[in-house]
Amino acid sequence: MEVLLQNEDTIAAVATGMGGAGIGIIRISGSQAVALGNKLFVNPRGKTLAAAKSHELIYGRIVDPTENKDIDEVLISKMMGPHSYTAEDVVEINCHGGIVPMRKILKLVIQSGARLAEPGEFTKRAFLNGRMDLTQAEAVIDIINAKTEKSLEYSVAQLEGRLSQKLEELDQILVGILSHMEVNIDYPEYDIEEISYDFVNSQILGLLSRIKEILVVAETGKIYREGITTAILGEPNVGKSSLLNTLLMENKAIVTDIPGTTRDTIEEYLNIEGIPFKIIDTAGIRETDNLVEKIGVEKSKALINQTNLVIFMRDISKEMSAGEKELIELLKNRKTIYIANKTDAISGMDIAIPEPWIPMSLLEDQGIETLRQKMLEMVFAGTVNQDADYLITNTRHIQLLETTQNSLKNAINTMASQMPLELVSIDVMEALEALRGITGKAVGMDIIDQIFKNFCIGK
Amino acid sequence: MEVLLQNEDTIAAVATGMGGAGIGIIRISGSQAVALGNKLFVNPRGKTLAAAKSHELIYGRIVDPTENKDIDEVLISKMMGPHSYTAEDVVEINCHGGIVPMRKILKLVIQSGARLAEPGEFTKRAFLNGRMDLTQAEAVIDIINAKTEKSLEYSVAQLEGRLSQKLEELDQILVGILSHMEVNIDYPEYDIEEISYDFVNSQILGLLSRIKEILVVAETGKIYREGITTAILGEPNVGKSSLLNTLLMENKAIVTDIPGTTRDTIEEYLNIEGIPFKIIDTAGIRETDNLVEKIGVEKSKALINQTNLVIFMRDISKEMSAGEKELIELLKNRKTIYIANKTDAISGMDIAIPEPWIPMSLLEDQGIETLRQKMLEMVFAGTVNQDADYLITNTRHIQLLETTQNSLKNAINTMASQMPLELVSIDVMEALEALRGITGKAVGMDIIDQIFKNFCIGK
Repeated sequence: MEVLLQNEDTIAAVATGMGGAGIGIIRISGSQAVALGNKLFVNPRGKTLAAAKSHELIYGRIVDPTENKDIDEVLISKMMGPHSYTAEDVVEINCHGGIVPMRKILKLVIQSGARLAEPGEFTKRAFLNGRMDLTQAEAVIDIINAKTEKSLEYSVAQLEGRLSQKLEELDQILVGILSHMEVNIDYPEYDIEEISYDFVNSQILGLLSRIKEILVVAETGKIYREGITTAILGEPNVGKSSLLNTLLMENKAIVTDIPGTTRDTIEEYLNIEGIPFKIIDTAGIRETDNLVEKIGVEKSKALINQTNLVIFMRDISKEMSAGEKELIELLKNRKTIYIANKTDAISGMDIAIPEPWIPMSLLEDQGIETLRQKMLEMVFAGTVNQDADYLITNTRHIQLLETTQNSLKNAINTMASQMPLELVSIDVMEALEALRGITGKAVGMDIIDQIFKNFCIGK
Repeated sequence: MEVLLQNEDTIAAVATGMGGAGIGIIRISGSQAVALGNKLFVNPRGKTLAAAKSHELIYGRIVDPTENKDIDEVLISKMMGPHSYTAEDVVEINCHGGIVPMRKILKLVIQSGARLAEPGEFTKRAFLNGRMDLTQAEAVIDIINAKTEKSLEYSVAQLEGRLSQKLEELDQILVGILSHMEVNIDYPEYDIEEISYDFVNSQILGLLSRIKEILVVAETGKIYREGITTAILGEPNVGKSSLLNTLLMENKAIVTDIPGTTRDTIEEYLNIEGIPFKIIDTAGIRETDNLVEKIGVEKSKALINQTNLVIFMRDISKEMSAGEKELIELLKNRKTIYIANKTDAISGMDIAIPEPWIPMSLLEDQGIETLRQKMLEMVFAGTVNQDADYLITNTRHIQLLETTQNSLKNAINTMASQMPLELVSIDVMEALEALRGITGKAVGMDIIDQIFKNFCIGK
């Protein structure tokens, strides 16, 4: 492994945001990282990067060696493998966070022999070098893209390996089942307890119930990770943009409660108790056009199909229009919240608001809280919002767990049809392969090793 | 000073760009920085930030102490004053560069007792604590906003104090003149060489010539710092947008010669031999409208007045229109480059292209290089593009140097009218004050000290 690493090329990239800011970091990883950094760095007291301790920040300048020109004032550090992000030798140059200084230093590093890193390549190397498994590597990008603090929490738990631990438990049970079966297949002459179909059967059923438990909250996990795409639909002037502003204003109060922090894309998301709702800016939301009338029924359908949730709003003080009836028809069988706005305009009148319509008066600040609760309710309908310390959030993981589940169900069926254990073990091996696909752990010699280690049959 | 620092509140801010990236830095500065960081940081082997060495990167987690929840995986470091950016105790938390983790950690730091830093406050503290003078502090923001590598070079030189050195030379000469005059004024009874008007006069004239030398390249410096606002004007379909694309494409090739680096606002700038040209996207450039016809003569004039340079383009194969004549009239007395485009369409015809029109054929790739050279020529007309190792780039500096210059001229005049040295010394003192305004060095006891130290008159 060590030898392989030395042959890898050295990669470099700007690791911080590219906007003009106080600090920017150029990160270099690979066997030549320290040599490259050393060539470009000058310390006023003659200290070199090569001579520095690992994990020590040294002050100095980056100098263009061909022209002997100072490029920027920096702090530089090296983190010697395996005690670094990639487990290779890593150098980080903290320069001023302007586009030109960051780009110029990166250019010098590339000209000195590094290669520009591909997206995610530092984390890929961390995975390939065994410092993290796939779920942990995937957690890194989820942390960066986290939309609410709750999403962040689950991603950090995943980075810390809590999902991996859970999967490792399942892995060990599967390996145990396989070991028992293999021994029974390969060494029928040895004096080992014969594996009964019943035993394997009960083990697999136990596993299936645990997998089901994990999958039941996976939908919730996906929601935390990706958010709920939501559209507010309705006729012109029913109050759609007022509602959006009301929801966004509350949100802004949360997002920008630290004055001076940059308001970013995150504001496209409403944060309701940690759940990110992404409001789609359809023609129908901000403008005052009738969606169906404007873009036609087919396109409206397509648009509505892209959303996870629709908030349909009408003016309760007016007769229901043909356009509204049309939209309501389109929204059948979709997750829809129905808002009867402008109750202030019918106060005193004898107008009943039937279920499931939520009475609302944006003018009198009525109904917003009911809507928020309804939004959360719709999100979690049919799922359990269990406050676990891990949560499957990633579609890839869900799919692989489902494959594991299916393979185990096949195993049960194979046994039910009285097929030989050899065939059952193929199903179980498939289940293990799918499970290990989640963490990226190879199904190879280690299983074989495990089998023989466990049983120590003296061969 | 030390005592004062302890009373300062502790400030914190996100120091890197806010875009989703690999790494983000939260910077804390002040007497409580280490205590705050210590409270939020947990290392797997129990190492604390308080116990860490200065300038050492430690791996661990930021934990929300109220809920005992992991917020992110980080590298943390402390840099103990005065060996830090602000010369106070500084803590830097390198977390994942997502908006939510950065904002959450900043929030925790604020909740733990820090105050959100005002824009530029870290650098302001570096100045107030004497770690850098004003020109160096100003260089920091110029480095971050540098538009080309050449601009960066001058800003870095300024950060390294090369401008300050130059100003210090002038400062010493002024203090020398003052000392001589003061001695003459205050201690006329002592046996010191009488200061002749001629001596002071020649000293001041010498200074004036040095200041003139610095100011002569100041315009160039301002150009490197701020760029040249440039508009491409002309009738519809003469080739304006093709020209813009051609210029931008060359530029993009330079800007993005490192594949994968983010293309940012910098692309609004054309980089011609290190000079940033900011192309203003006027109605007349990208669209095919006649500027004057569309927005009227007065507004066109106003717009043209906002630019440093106009590139006026016409189709040489067509008769000059009334609109073009109108525009050319407007552009009189402005820095304008005249382009006669589509020479390909008149090849073989007997059409002369008079000075100062530049013949161009975008179709046949003719004339672009001439234009580029002309653009550079226009920029430096009347200035000397001296390749000095320092360059005044900042309008504030230019204005203060001009004030210095004027005060010294006043001194010359005061002497010419045979006024007493007391009055001349007031002018010279004003000159010194203006000069010191550039670096922020106070005019106070140190001058008095200097005077007595230099002359050691035994009192």
